Amino acid sequence: MAASTSSLLAAASSSCAAISPRLARAAPAAASVPSPSRPSCPILRASSVSSHRSLFVASAAPTMQPPAESRVSTVVDVDLGDRSYPIYIGSGLLDEPDLLQSHVHGKRVLVVTNTTVAPLYLEKVTWALTHNNPNVSVDSVILPDGEKYKDMDTLMKVFDKAIESRLDRRCTFVALGGGVIGDMCGFAAAAFLRGVNFIQIPTTLMAQVDSSVGGKTGINHPLGKNMIGAFYQPQCVLVDTDTLNTLPDRELASGIAEVVKYGLIRDAPFFEWQEKNMSALLARDPSAVAYAIKRSCENKAEVVAQDEKESGLRATLNLGHTFGHAIETGLGYGAWLHGEAIAAGTVMAADMSHRLGWIDDSLYKRVVEILGESQASHCTSRDYDSGDVDKKVADGLLRLILLKGPLGSCVFTGDYDRKVLDETLHAFCDS
Amino acid sequence: MAASTSSLLAAASSSCAAISPRLARAAPAAASVPSPSRPSCPILRASSVSSHRSLFVASAAPTMQPPAESRVSTVVDVDLGDRSYPIYIGSGLLDEPDLLQSHVHGKRVLVVTNTTVAPLYLEKVTWALTHNNPNVSVDSVILPDGEKYKDMDTLMKVFDKAIESRLDRRCTFVALGGGVIGDMCGFAAAAFLRGVNFIQIPTTLMAQVDSSVGGKTGINHPLGKNMIGAFYQPQCVLVDTDTLNTLPDRELASGIAEVVKYGLIRDAPFFEWQEKNMSALLARDPSAVAYAIKRSCENKAEVVAQDEKESGLRATLNLGHTFGHAIETGLGYGAWLHGEAIAAGTVMAADMSHRLGWIDDSLYKRVVEILGESQASHCTSRDYDSGDVDKKVADGLLRLILLKGPLGSCVFTGDYDRKVLDETLHAFCDS
Repeated sequence: MAASTSSLLAAASSSCAAISPRLARAAPAAASVPSPSRPSCPILRASSVSSHRSLFVASAAPTMQPPAESRVSTVVDVDLGDRSYPIYIGSGLLDEPDLLQSHVHGKRVLVVTNTTVAPLYLEKVTWALTHNNPNVSVDSVILPDGEKYKDMDTLMKVFDKAIESRLDRRCTFVALGGGVIGDMCGFAAAAFLRGVNFIQIPTTLMAQVDSSVGGKTGINHPLGKNMIGAFYQPQCVLVDTDTLNTLPDRELASGIAEVVKYGLIRDAPFFEWQEKNMSALLARDPSAVAYAIKRSCENKAEVVAQDEKESGLRATLNLGHTFGHAIETGLGYGAWLHGEAIAAGTVMAADMSHRLGWIDDSLYKRVVEILGESQASHCTSRDYDSGDVDKKVADGLLRLILLKGPLGSCVFTGDYDRKVLDETLHAFCDS
Repeated sequence: MAASTSSLLAAASSSCAAISPRLARAAPAAASVPSPSRPSCPILRASSVSSHRSLFVASAAPTMQPPAESRVSTVVDVDLGDRSYPIYIGSGLLDEPDLLQSHVHGKRVLVVTNTTVAPLYLEKVTWALTHNNPNVSVDSVILPDGEKYKDMDTLMKVFDKAIESRLDRRCTFVALGGGVIGDMCGFAAAAFLRGVNFIQIPTTLMAQVDSSVGGKTGINHPLGKNMIGAFYQPQCVLVDTDTLNTLPDRELASGIAEVVKYGLIRDAPFFEWQEKNMSALLARDPSAVAYAIKRSCENKAEVVAQDEKESGLRATLNLGHTFGHAIETGLGYGAWLHGEAIAAGTVMAADMSHRLGWIDDSLYKRVVEILGESQASHCTSRDYDSGDVDKKVADGLLRLILLKGPLGSCVFTGDYDRKVLDETLHAFCDS
């Protein structure tokens, strides 16, 4: 159990300065001024997608209000120099073969998916890859579903299939599934023949708003999450919001925890929008869901463009993750969904921030309330123990992402009273 | 057996144009004009090393004649923008703690070595890392020795040790050993926490002249060599030529095959120097060995600086490797040393080039003669079968690195008469 929070700890140990509230606020937050006339951020460009089917095309600048139409088609660009790529968001995008095919390199494709998603979407994606495109051949590998299979043994099945299929460096891997599939397929693409192209087709809200964007790929080690991996960017991310129609309620709620995160750490207007629209999100109102995905991707793209390899700012995206990873490792992968652990971890971070006097009563209550309403934090406390976090602290300074100041502000810091951390752990943990 | 030459085939299938003889000759070959007054190549800078012990400091431009002194200390820079790094070459460099310590990031070091090298040099390297440097702590992991252990199971031992030792992103991995250790440690460093710093301390001639330079890292898959890996550059390469004193003769000869390669593909004067100095190399004459390492590293650094990820030119460094990898896979890893397989593969490539009429009788004989004299190609033909190469060819165009034109020229091409390939396979293989 020694390393369950090492990912975070590693970030915490890096040489970056703490992210001050001032810095966090100074970072451009695309929706922080709820005016349709605000200039578009140079880092983040929302532009129209060349889609035949889109009934709605996003304006050149992000807008605060969700669109009236249900079929949103938006492009969010992730600006990383020669590794830049677009995120396409819209309803029915898998029915547009040209869009997907325009990002396929070479003539060979390996779709990596799992036993849950394959029956739902593998045929459709294969059609989209090959429709009017006879030169492309598609192989697929179907992995068992779940975080507990995000390991080296399962990853090797991807390499086995790629090698048996005699794929060469010009092939394209396609990740079709949630965060686990995206992380594994991405790392497999990074490592196969020292790197081949890949495309993300996330089918869970969690993956659509967070894990498919930004190029973090990898697998777990028995002693810690995401210990083995690569920073490796896809050719594009294709978010067909229709895939959420088949998502279980619990998975939907899990994804909403990450949406809430963006509001808390850097985008107050987005948080306020969520407070007003949570019931619409839970009811899968298409325009509300599409807007939540778009704003989440815009926030993530901005952060990643500034700090691709997490030397500082990007660490703030890990709000709730130190506690959350400890929960996941302590309980064993898969007992809770990732977003459920993050929701609980976020409540703990807010509790500690509140105890430190860094946020007021009102904000703390709003955090607890929205995560409660989102149903992500349905698992109550006392289901895990604090031993792992304790060990990390004992090793040295444990830096945490905590809320500080008004809504939308956070810090990444080790400069806190250890007793307050103990109080939070004591309040939420059995031992 | 399907994929044993996929690495090469992958390169062969990439979009680059064939390297024409003209292009190969146009590439700057640092020693192609054996004059001490030639201007130094802008890509390749040989400069003096700030070493206390060096009795000889290389001049600013590469020279053709090996130095009279035995203790050479040279720096070859690998110019890759923000991933540039120096190669230090000299006798007794492990006795200079400052040199090594200046490239260690953070306070934690993991030395990756094997059961053969650890008893010889682990204590010395640990001393060099920690002498007058009490803040640094060193862990080590000792892997079994041999190409057959260059696999995922063995790689996991590196991750296990790194995680058990609670290393964070600021640690440094040190590869202490031959090519297998360098490739595995490099890939482990690339993947651990999505990338940590690492240093190469190659202890075999093969690793010193080839595999430790250029950032190719990875492991084998049961179906093919180097199928899983990363392009990942070290902080520095430290070549202490004294480590060759403990190298078995067969390993020394294996490394000389790669030295010969540089002469054949791009550096005629270096090949001519080798013809005159092979007996000195085999006798481990320190200045001859140091010069061979220096010129090899200079050649490799030039090629890598121009084509880091092997989209074209870098493929020429694989002379003899398509045949050689097929031999290694066919016989099972470890039956032959890598350089022995490459030597045999180079003779096959020269034979095919000769049959095609691309090189004259004289050059073909010189290739056979020098590889025979180097004792790398002690294993005779008919020890392997051609089935794997046949399969690759059946799949489509198999591009090969072949000699063409005068000494020092090669092509990377699929434009050859298939019958001639068959003749070569028939001449050297059982089936």
